Amino acid sequence: MSNPKSISVLGSTGSIGVNTLQIAAKNTDRIKIKYLTANKNSDLIISQTQQFLPNAIAITDPQAFEHAKNALKNSSVEILFGKEGLNEIASRDDVDLVVNAVVGKSGLEPTICALEMGKDIALANKESLVMAGEWVMKLTKERNATVFPIDSEHSAIWQCLSGENQKQVNKIILTGSGGPFRQYPLDQFSSIAPEQALKHPNWSMGAKITVDSATMMNKGLEIIEARWLFDFPPEQIEILIHPQSIIHSMVEFVDGSIKAQLGLPDMKIPIQYALSYPDRWHADWEKIDFTKLASLTFESPDLNRFPCLSLAMDALERGGIYPAALNIMNEFAVYAFLDRKILFTDIAICVEQILSLGDLANWEINLQSFQELETVAKDILNNIEKQCCK
Amino acid sequence: MSNPKSISVLGSTGSIGVNTLQIAAKNTDRIKIKYLTANKNSDLIISQTQQFLPNAIAITDPQAFEHAKNALKNSSVEILFGKEGLNEIASRDDVDLVVNAVVGKSGLEPTICALEMGKDIALANKESLVMAGEWVMKLTKERNATVFPIDSEHSAIWQCLSGENQKQVNKIILTGSGGPFRQYPLDQFSSIAPEQALKHPNWSMGAKITVDSATMMNKGLEIIEARWLFDFPPEQIEILIHPQSIIHSMVEFVDGSIKAQLGLPDMKIPIQYALSYPDRWHADWEKIDFTKLASLTFESPDLNRFPCLSLAMDALERGGIYPAALNIMNEFAVYAFLDRKILFTDIAICVEQILSLGDLANWEINLQSFQELETVAKDILNNIEKQCCK
Repeated sequence: MSNPKSISVLGSTGSIGVNTLQIAAKNTDRIKIKYLTANKNSDLIISQTQQFLPNAIAITDPQAFEHAKNALKNSSVEILFGKEGLNEIASRDDVDLVVNAVVGKSGLEPTICALEMGKDIALANKESLVMAGEWVMKLTKERNATVFPIDSEHSAIWQCLSGENQKQVNKIILTGSGGPFRQYPLDQFSSIAPEQALKHPNWSMGAKITVDSATMMNKGLEIIEARWLFDFPPEQIEILIHPQSIIHSMVEFVDGSIKAQLGLPDMKIPIQYALSYPDRWHADWEKIDFTKLASLTFESPDLNRFPCLSLAMDALERGGIYPAALNIMNEFAVYAFLDRKILFTDIAICVEQILSLGDLANWEINLQSFQELETVAKDILNNIEKQCCK
Repeated sequence: MSNPKSISVLGSTGSIGVNTLQIAAKNTDRIKIKYLTANKNSDLIISQTQQFLPNAIAITDPQAFEHAKNALKNSSVEILFGKEGLNEIASRDDVDLVVNAVVGKSGLEPTICALEMGKDIALANKESLVMAGEWVMKLTKERNATVFPIDSEHSAIWQCLSGENQKQVNKIILTGSGGPFRQYPLDQFSSIAPEQALKHPNWSMGAKITVDSATMMNKGLEIIEARWLFDFPPEQIEILIHPQSIIHSMVEFVDGSIKAQLGLPDMKIPIQYALSYPDRWHADWEKIDFTKLASLTFESPDLNRFPCLSLAMDALERGGIYPAALNIMNEFAVYAFLDRKILFTDIAICVEQILSLGDLANWEINLQSFQELETVAKDILNNIEKQCCK
């Protein structure tokens, strides 16, 4: 048995972070947790720190930081604060792999930090690639690092490409369940409540991504992610609705042969694969029993019902800063929807408005631009919120 | 572009042979046909010879041989006769790959001949591995040759294993449509006519394998084939009924991840993959349109309905000469059924009788034993035929 892999888990209290630590706990001979970070959930990161004894942790929320500092005052763990603390942890050189499970746009900077140090990344933060895919992949190459996907779809594609020649791929078939509103009456979309959008038929995930699945923006973000991760042009990536979420994605080759990766809808499989690669580790979680499965069905995505999907494809086609604008606007809009400040259907309206800003075409792609985009996005959101409250 | 691959096609007038030549005709820059062989279909091998201009051909049936010799007398092609001719063609050293598409037990000797010469084999003749799997694979290793499967299921497994560590496989899931009688009234099985058994719901194949699909002996033979081809013990190979024949087989890994290979039920994909490996060649045949597919379903095999499946698993477990006995008996019985000399249900009865011969346990595995098994099988068949005619 070789030495355990040292890892940091950025965003350890979210759904992906918690699952990652569960896998680490079952594989203590293979995984050593060196660093953890969280945003607000101080209770959870405190108990994770007590269990996994990391060298250091970072907490970005001021109140949560104070709470954890106090609770862990008798421990030897180093506790860093804020975005700077998160970025410092992401830059630490004494790990083999950085698991980036930070939710949303805040995950980009840690990705850049880790890659600058030449660290391999297991990436659950799809926003890193949506906002700055070209930049991130260029940096990955320059620093001789590797980005391992954690998203179930991208893990599936990665697994299907294993042992194959990328030039002999005809297309990537990105599957998606279609979310909870695939068959919901379209004329009632504007009255969809957060509680409804938070009920995903198959997957148990965080709030942000669950709403993104309900608008199907998630699938749009995934196309952009796949485009950069695997270096395929958009026209070679296709979306297919597969409501049962058993086939996690497929690859069609030039000879018409298709490879698919299947599994129960449980993020532990793709997370563990990103940790274990190029090996696979034995796992005792439930496996598929095909004789108990409902039949597997497929349909085309309904772009009329899910405008966010078209908007994402449009942003990808325009390139430049547009995917970042889409992502930043969407993130603000989703949280505003969860706060009941805008309607479910306003999410797409917000995104449409930001993409219609013609001068974005000339913006450079850097962290400064992303900050300015936040200001633009907040303005758009404020306007929509005002109209919504009338 | 490298030099074209020189190949011989043994059994060029059967379903696999014809498809192989269609692929060769579309890829003249990649494939050069050097040798062809046939049994009785002289008309077809004559026209194939005129089209592909092989160096030599072999014909095993005396009448067909005479006919072809006469028809091709003005051609420079060398025409060999009989089983000896077939084996000589299989032994020719000036090819890169031998495609063995001979039907049934007659395919074993050519496999041995080709391997003795250290030639790689694209193997459609599953009987070679069913009857003498251990011998064939040992010879393959000794002569540093490779056996590429052509069976769609085994091609699927091979593709799913690509880039993976064989030790991290949990199980092989061999899928099968269940054939035309999956839901046919069990009390009417004894009156099933050859015409009914020859109507496969998904696949267009030769008569022998189509009847084997109807009894599900085919799936039993495939378990034995998979056992030797991929070196997995029988307990790691599972059969799953999948009536739509879209998923051609799957591999489950120790982490619960499953890879599947999918395609329309057309033998051209696995044939071409065996020819093109490690590349994949662009093909213009119809591809899967998932939005037009019926839903994909799965069920357990019904061993009560399909006793041949249990008999094959039993033969594999007993090992030694038993799988060869099963295969030889089955082949005689299938042709007797097609000749209306025995009932559909007699096929399994014949096989059960040969497997119940206790002294088989001590037989050595060699060509001599296989010939003696033919005598034993003929005796059993004669008895059943007599009872059937009463």
